[in-house]
Amino acid sequence: MTEHSLWRFSRALHRALSERRPEDLAALLDDDVDWAIYGPIDMFPFLGARRGKAAVLDVVGQIADNFQVRKFERETVMLGVDSAASMMRYSLTAVDSNKPISLRIAHFVRFRAGRLLSMRVLLDSFDLVEQTLGHPIHLPKIAS
Amino acid sequence: MTEHSLWRFSRALHRALSERRPEDLAALLDDDVDWAIYGPIDMFPFLGARRGKAAVLDVVGQIADNFQVRKFERETVMLGVDSAASMMRYSLTAVDSNKPISLRIAHFVRFRAGRLLSMRVLLDSFDLVEQTLGHPIHLPKIAS
Repeated sequence: MTEHSLWRFSRALHRALSERRPEDLAALLDDDVDWAIYGPIDMFPFLGARRGKAAVLDVVGQIADNFQVRKFERETVMLGVDSAASMMRYSLTAVDSNKPISLRIAHFVRFRAGRLLSMRVLLDSFDLVEQTLGHPIHLPKIAS
Repeated sequence: MTEHSLWRFSRALHRALSERRPEDLAALLDDDVDWAIYGPIDMFPFLGARRGKAAVLDVVGQIADNFQVRKFERETVMLGVDSAASMMRYSLTAVDSNKPISLRIAHFVRFRAGRLLSMRVLLDSFDLVEQTLGHPIHLPKIAS
């Protein structure tokens, strides 16, 4: 039984993020990879959609410029033949401010021939904004 | 082949939300169900964690008080034996303001004996806040 593509991809992604070594990741991206991390791109220009291997390697470098991954924990994982979904908790440090940031994310990925073809990431973006600012944003209570 | 628990649960949840008929949903919740929708609970008190059937039925009623589901589309779905994960797009209307709200959510669910045992939902919470306020929140650009 061969290893699921998710594990190889996850190791390569974290090596690219933590050690600034994108070579393994480059080999595991489909040339036409479709990538999206939903969130406020005005504050975090490395969120949003990217298309193609070069654009994804570039944005992974930008994420590494801004956040250091201290640790992550996979709370839930589902594996399909060429797909996977996880809910994960990340402990990050914001590089500029040295602030610790704790973030829950969900990702859905698809692979083709062992390479990443599509990735969609959702995260609790309001929580990320407040932790990055370092103070709460006042919100009205809307519920009736 | 029996129908996956996800489909029965999804129909019951949407009937509870749209038609204010929680009976079907009540029958599909484990007594000790563990429920969490991550997001800013100061603004949306019906987000956050709930435990047990009564608390979940109560919070589903609160969600229905505040949002009307116009339509939803399941972009990705993964099914396990007693588990499932989906990425979905919802078109909602905020009941108080009549504002249209478009929201992407990810959910991870587990079932026991066909009843919901655990649900974890992530959503692009900053986008939800801005759409609900009806104006953008000014954010500094943090990326180096």
